[in-house]
Amino acid sequence: MMIGRVIGNVWATRKKDSLSGSKLMIVQRLDAVSGESLENFVAVDCVGSGIGEKVLVTVGSSARKALENTEAPVDAAIVGIIDEAKD
Amino acid sequence: MMIGRVIGNVWATRKKDSLSGSKLMIVQRLDAVSGESLENFVAVDCVGSGIGEKVLVTVGSSARKALENTEAPVDAAIVGIIDEAKD
Amino acid sequence: MMIGRVIGNVWATRKKDSLSGSKLMIVQRLDAVSGESLENFVAVDCVGSGIGEKVLVTVGSSARKALENTEAPVDAAIVGIIDEAKD
Amino acid sequence: MMIGRVIGNVWATRKKDSLSGSKLMIVQRLDAVSGESLENFVAVDCVGSGIGEKVLVTVGSSARKALENTEAPVDAAIVGIIDEAKD
Amino acid sequence: MMIGRVIGNVWATRKKDSLSGSKLMIVQRLDAVSGESLENFVAVDCVGSGIGEKVLVTVGSSARKALENTEAPVDAAIVGIIDEAKD
Repeated sequence: MMIGRVIGNVWATRKKDSLSGSKLMIVQRLDAVSGESLENFVAVDCVGSGIGEKVLVTVGSSARKALENTEAPVDAAIVGIIDEAKD
Repeated sequence: MMIGRVIGNVWATRKKDSLSGSKLMIVQRLDAVSGESLENFVAVDCVGSGIGEKVLVTVGSSARKALENTEAPVDAAIVGIIDEAKD
Repeated sequence: MMIGRVIGNVWATRKKDSLSGSKLMIVQRLDAVSGESLENFVAVDCVGSGIGEKVLVTVGSSARKALENTEAPVDAAIVGIIDEAKD
Repeated sequence: MMIGRVIGNVWATRKKDSLSGSKLMIVQRLDAVSGESLENFVAVDCVGSGIGEKVLVTVGSSARKALENTEAPVDAAIVGIIDEAKD
Repeated sequence: MMIGRVIGNVWATRKKDSLSGSKLMIVQRLDAVSGESLENFVAVDCVGSGIGEKVLVTVGSSARKALENTEAPVDAAIVGIIDEAKD
């Protein structure tokens, strides 16, 4: 999994029906040690996260395990809100 | 998922039968914040997108969940047309 | 999926039985816009491609959907021969 | 799989129920030859590893095979503690 | 798949039971054209390969298809020993 910060939303009126109701968030990956910003991507929120929060993201087919509809075409999901990452 | 722009088509007369009828699009990945062009790749259109449109793309095995034939050998699918990505 | 050029063959006498009869090709990935050579890898040919041809390659678990034996340990498959990629 | 060092913990009070009880560790990937630090990420501990230990990590859908709950949304798991990596 | 050279072994006394008996090898990925060394990683040997040999490696969920126990948490497998890679 990776650590990231929610930095925005994506709106898509025309989309696969199986994505209806999904909250699509833009996530900026962070280096867990330095906090440096890495690449960004879009993930489906599964835990009620908001913009500015630090989150845990799962990618690949495992992301679908976090969804209500596990048959949706989703490859990244926000699965936790981070209290603290301590090294 | 990632954000990209549809920039072209790919034509392949000889292909796996399970790809027949698939619209193969060239997508240029975009950085969601800066809008900078990143790598490009080929994705199957699942939402009626056209050249020039900004789209949401799912990759990996999850891409197959967007297809009519979920047994086709496809690892990237256009699953939405983006109205707005706001950070 | 990605666009590449078939640039060679790989021969392996000792291999998993489930790979017997597979045509193992070296593919050089190409940037779809600039045509620049990117990384190379090995893919199983599923469409009768030959050296020098421009091909469409599927990677990951989806590659197995192109094989006769979908239980073979294969993570990249040539699924089409490209006539034209137009941007 | 990759070799890494456990360098910290991640705490997330709000998370998917299926992650409850999972020990979330920050792992710094290491080059197996030079020992150089590469990227870091979060993995679920499945072998009782502690901070400072050198571990073996599996990523992708295969990571779920190491979990008690194979339906949890996890894409990286610590599957062994390394005694020695000898080249 | 990718081409690599077996450059070492990994020993892990404490590991998931499902990995018992697996031969864990360090593999250095090679560029198929230039022969240049790329990243390294750990793979389970499935063909009796030894240190110094040039091998074919499958990654991701497809790697599990090469194992006796397809439920083991493995994301990379050595599936062939290369006689010749000719471009």
